[in-house]
Amino acid sequence: MAHESPDVPASLIVDLVEVGPRDGLQNESRTLPVEVRARLIERLVDAGVRRLEAVSFVRPDLVPQMAEPERVLDLLPAWEDGPDVTLIGLVLNRRGAERAVATRVQELNMVVPVTDGFATRNQGASVEALLDQAADVVSVARDAGRRVSVTLPVSFGCPFDGDVHPEQVAPVVERVLAMGVDELAFADTIGVGVPPQVEALASLVPEAARGATLPHLRFHFHNTRNTGYANAWAATRLDLAAYGGRVALDSSVGGFGGCPFAPAATGNIGTEDLVHLLRRGGVRVSDLDDVDDLSGLIDTAAWLSTELGSPVQALLGRAGDRPGVAVPTPDRGEPDGDAGDPGDAA
Amino acid sequence: MAHESPDVPASLIVDLVEVGPRDGLQNESRTLPVEVRARLIERLVDAGVRRLEAVSFVRPDLVPQMAEPERVLDLLPAWEDGPDVTLIGLVLNRRGAERAVATRVQELNMVVPVTDGFATRNQGASVEALLDQAADVVSVARDAGRRVSVTLPVSFGCPFDGDVHPEQVAPVVERVLAMGVDELAFADTIGVGVPPQVEALASLVPEAARGATLPHLRFHFHNTRNTGYANAWAATRLDLAAYGGRVALDSSVGGFGGCPFAPAATGNIGTEDLVHLLRRGGVRVSDLDDVDDLSGLIDTAAWLSTELGSPVQALLGRAGDRPGVAVPTPDRGEPDGDAGDPGDAA
Repeated sequence: MAHESPDVPASLIVDLVEVGPRDGLQNESRTLPVEVRARLIERLVDAGVRRLEAVSFVRPDLVPQMAEPERVLDLLPAWEDGPDVTLIGLVLNRRGAERAVATRVQELNMVVPVTDGFATRNQGASVEALLDQAADVVSVARDAGRRVSVTLPVSFGCPFDGDVHPEQVAPVVERVLAMGVDELAFADTIGVGVPPQVEALASLVPEAARGATLPHLRFHFHNTRNTGYANAWAATRLDLAAYGGRVALDSSVGGFGGCPFAPAATGNIGTEDLVHLLRRGGVRVSDLDDVDDLSGLIDTAAWLSTELGSPVQALLGRAGDRPGVAVPTPDRGEPDGDAGDPGDAA
Repeated sequence: MAHESPDVPASLIVDLVEVGPRDGLQNESRTLPVEVRARLIERLVDAGVRRLEAVSFVRPDLVPQMAEPERVLDLLPAWEDGPDVTLIGLVLNRRGAERAVATRVQELNMVVPVTDGFATRNQGASVEALLDQAADVVSVARDAGRRVSVTLPVSFGCPFDGDVHPEQVAPVVERVLAMGVDELAFADTIGVGVPPQVEALASLVPEAARGATLPHLRFHFHNTRNTGYANAWAATRLDLAAYGGRVALDSSVGGFGGCPFAPAATGNIGTEDLVHLLRRGGVRVSDLDDVDDLSGLIDTAAWLSTELGSPVQALLGRAGDRPGVAVPTPDRGEPDGDAGDPGDAA
């Protein structure tokens, strides 16, 4: 399917992080049973996904959609001698981290919003306090031999504090890099980001690293205002030489997720649409290297839509994934033998 | 609203072409009365739009949605001493051009698909025959002192002939440039395009011009598979020095339009979402220079949705156009005074 392009370096690789089982579900009104949540993860792995934010270790009274992460994990196959699957657990403090390392998750992802307005409303503490908690999480993860990443919500704009400028994000990046994380992610939580912000935020990391080893770079985009895929593409056009030509992107199968602060809006960028864009654009997607078509993702999105009672936001399932596929003969504008009497599709 | 960015040249200007009254309506199942079509154009001008594909001179039995262009134009205000409005009429042959120049339209837009598969099905003639018709249209327009542009449908892929490579498009571009058109547009009629194709197609024009004066450059994107806004952004990142730092983009208020060959799919990129992306990305949009907010566009999209009985596809109206606007207080994950017990929006 890949469209060969001379403009994209052949070495560029995007590493997917499928967040459907976490960000895709946590804002839906319907809470899925743990069996269905485990089935979602299994289906995603069957479709070719290899790294997933599978569960979240948070308070079930606040986020019932994410309750009982341990039970979800227990229901999953071992995948021994099978695909090399990385399960990520989202955590927000030391207590969550201690729960997470008692499970099979190989990676912990800590969340540190970059504005006090969002930090206090989402996590009940200031950015400063959450940075201290992040240091605790990193310590717990390291002691348990797990990978650890940090995601920085509202890096592109905040529903409470308004515009967020990269200079505000820089000190948070510096603090996180000093903890020695494996990966750092900039998140456009409310979907207000645009491509120049992708470039500006990415440039903070080498500056903050001051020559030390860079963490992996990841982005988390929402398509709330139809800028999410443009931002994802912009991430692939960064100078990624210092990152070995790799960048990671979060996406959610079917584009489920929404934004809790814009209830009518659409959600995360959709995995199937993202993979389609990247592959047709000549970018290699590491996870699905041996998956030729995206029907596994498209079918999983349709199944999840039924389970959630919520429409698929991604478009590939409706449109077909390439020219000449899933395209009916038009029912008007047909040739009628009169070259001077045309339809007018443009 | 503009987000200052050092990465976008300050001189970059996007010229909008609003195609809602034409491409936005022609594939909708409901045919609007001429009075409503005229009202749509008036509302768009009131909202700040200055150049519009207002009507189409095609057979009413094939495209009833576009019937009676002369009556639509007669119903419009003169806008004397008012905004400098350019009305474009789509034409497909000499007969259409002759009808068009008998009206007030200042510009004719001729359509030449780049594949025989699409050309014969959409317009009942080969690409070669349509190039001859285009030459006739240019001649009629010139004799009548009108501007004339040519749009090249399926330049990014064809529902009948499959993938379309830039090398196939090159000879069509050469022929069109030889006619001396004011503007050339590449159209992603079925929404299969990706950003590297934007770059590859744009590079054909200076090559084909062989040092002669370049026509203006325009693109027409559909968001059928969520690549439309990424393509639009890519068009702003082209080397546009030879074009005076300007590029034109087609869009449709509300994102109406759809693709006749993917009936369930979404349509044109939406004007309000495009303007939001561009302005927040630091790109000047010429039409709306004196328009501070996009509520005129958003309200027009909502009104048109009611007239068509079809949902708005653009997202800005649902999400609000900036951080901190139209954002309700979250209903869960609120601070509860316990810093260790958070929600988990990321």
